Amino acid sequence: MTSPAKFRKDKEIIAEYETQVKEIRAQLAEQLKCLDQQCELRVQLLQDLQDFFRKKAEIETDYSRNLEKLAERFLAKTRSTKDHQLRKEQNVLSPVSCWNLLLAQVKGESRDHATLSDLYLNNIIPRFAQVSDDSGRLFKKSKEVGLQLQEDLIKVLNELHAVMKTYHMYNTDSMNAESKLKEAEKQEEKQMGRSVRQEERLTPRSPDALASVRLDDKHVRRSSVKKIEKMKEKRQAKYTENKLKAIKARNEYLLVLEATNSCVFKYYIHDLSDLINCCDLGYHASVNRALRTYLSAEFNVEQSRHRGLEGIENAAENLEPNGDKQRLMETYNSVFCPPCASTSSPTWATRWGRCVPSPPCTGNCCSGANSSRTASLPSASRTKR
Amino acid sequence: MTSPAKFRKDKEIIAEYETQVKEIRAQLAEQLKCLDQQCELRVQLLQDLQDFFRKKAEIETDYSRNLEKLAERFLAKTRSTKDHQLRKEQNVLSPVSCWNLLLAQVKGESRDHATLSDLYLNNIIPRFAQVSDDSGRLFKKSKEVGLQLQEDLIKVLNELHAVMKTYHMYNTDSMNAESKLKEAEKQEEKQMGRSVRQEERLTPRSPDALASVRLDDKHVRRSSVKKIEKMKEKRQAKYTENKLKAIKARNEYLLVLEATNSCVFKYYIHDLSDLINCCDLGYHASVNRALRTYLSAEFNVEQSRHRGLEGIENAAENLEPNGDKQRLMETYNSVFCPPCASTSSPTWATRWGRCVPSPPCTGNCCSGANSSRTASLPSASRTKR
Repeated sequence: MTSPAKFRKDKEIIAEYETQVKEIRAQLAEQLKCLDQQCELRVQLLQDLQDFFRKKAEIETDYSRNLEKLAERFLAKTRSTKDHQLRKEQNVLSPVSCWNLLLAQVKGESRDHATLSDLYLNNIIPRFAQVSDDSGRLFKKSKEVGLQLQEDLIKVLNELHAVMKTYHMYNTDSMNAESKLKEAEKQEEKQMGRSVRQEERLTPRSPDALASVRLDDKHVRRSSVKKIEKMKEKRQAKYTENKLKAIKARNEYLLVLEATNSCVFKYYIHDLSDLINCCDLGYHASVNRALRTYLSAEFNVEQSRHRGLEGIENAAENLEPNGDKQRLMETYNSVFCPPCASTSSPTWATRWGRCVPSPPCTGNCCSGANSSRTASLPSASRTKR
Repeated sequence: MTSPAKFRKDKEIIAEYETQVKEIRAQLAEQLKCLDQQCELRVQLLQDLQDFFRKKAEIETDYSRNLEKLAERFLAKTRSTKDHQLRKEQNVLSPVSCWNLLLAQVKGESRDHATLSDLYLNNIIPRFAQVSDDSGRLFKKSKEVGLQLQEDLIKVLNELHAVMKTYHMYNTDSMNAESKLKEAEKQEEKQMGRSVRQEERLTPRSPDALASVRLDDKHVRRSSVKKIEKMKEKRQAKYTENKLKAIKARNEYLLVLEATNSCVFKYYIHDLSDLINCCDLGYHASVNRALRTYLSAEFNVEQSRHRGLEGIENAAENLEPNGDKQRLMETYNSVFCPPCASTSSPTWATRWGRCVPSPPCTGNCCSGANSSRTASLPSASRTKR
């Protein structure tokens, strides 16, 4: 490569590096902007979660109140039934049991949804608020740290730029000195060649004339050679000096380049990752805990609801006409019990023999629709003959 | 037992039977009243169930609408985000996934509760209305049948009363005739005894006087004995006739008593039970079906809700800062990717050897926070010496 081409390349390299540094600066700014945006979105998300649970708490409270009112409306009706006995009697019937369980279920659901609402307001929302505060603080702190890291990186990049420029300057100087030295060497070679050719051309002349010409020429040539040699030496010294400077600058450049590379590597591979870690510190775990609280509450509601429904299912399975008939007959024993012999008239009991084994009318008398109850009308009259 | 005592007993028996029949009549009326009351209570219960589900349907609709509004409020916010790209980018982050699932869950719950409301109105309430109509009709029909059965029973009881009275009348007549016959027999015995004593007293007198007295006495005694005998015969005949009547009446009475006993037995043991069965016909099964429909709907809601919650639980478990960091860096690849060698300048790439292996900046470039990304700043410059 020729020197001017080499020089052009060096200039291009510096320009390209400058472009790259400019791009990196822009990227660093973008990184902070991106983190800012993430922070904003996160705070917004946490705000949305709080608003969501606040509104849901309202909805659950409403729902709970309505269910409570619904259950109370019918429970109050049952309670207001003046005939306490009738209420007690009705409760033994299987459809009434189902109805009571339905009302109990609604009351239970009302209670559960009130609990949900309470939990949203007093546990989940404060958790998200806390996470939001923490996130904001962490982002702010992380951004400060990030800015510091970026400043440090920029400093290193600028240093590389400086040593790069110095190296290229010294390298250019060294190359210039080298080319000048080469020029001097060429001149010297040319001078040497001219002297030899002149000597050969002058040999056929008279010895005296030849001798005087030779002396003159020799004198001129010697001073010219001396001048060239002196210049060459000067240029050699200059070149050596510049070459040394360039080598020193190159070593400096290589060291700074290595340092910069590891800085860039550290920043992009570790620092950025750590920065994001700092922003995220505890965020996922806190959101997880808040969601676990929410889920646990919802699962509790589900279980309680399920138990209630199973109770109703069980009661629905026990909807059984025969059992109810028996219970009705037991409850209204006096109404459904077959007539019995009057116990106050032993004569009557004795007189109507079939009546004797029939026990006085108690609850046992009519138990079992198909139990053999003794019909107690007077049987054969044993008249005296 | 003396006749008057026996007569008193008979009267008591009839009076007691009358009391018993009166009690049975009252009991029969009570039975119908009891069935009426049961019908009323049943219709009331079914009305309450309908009112309950109607009101609950309203509550569920309200709840569903509120949940829908809640979900839509936040979903609309997401949709209105102008930056479609940003939305897509955010959705890959694990807390945003949780948030989206929460909203989906609320939307799902809204849908489920609307379904519940719909099912209450269009399935469960009509079922209960149908059961109520059927119950009313069945009770009416059963009451008619019950009244007929009771009338038949009363008829039989009245018949027993009649034959009982007849028997007691004939029995009394028979006993009266018997006592009169006995009286006649006693008189006859007395008359016989008096004749013998008079004859013994008159034996010591003169034969003529004795003979005339004897003839006179004999004549008187004979006519008296004859009269007594005639009366005895008459009474015997009367007694025999009455006794026969009483026996006939007793047989009639025994037959009717037997029939009445089995009628009473049949009514109390079978008919009443059948009557209640008629009233209950299909009632328990229908209520069971309606409740099963309700339960199945509720269990469906529970399952759907549970699946949603499990989804959120899963998402909460996947809340993971490292994954999010990686996704963020992949999404904002150009912002977080380490600087690369300009691909438009092959010389540069060649010149800075370390840059050569670094690929052009693609998504793969930055995958994995700890992946060995090639720092791409210029490395050792191979200067020409």
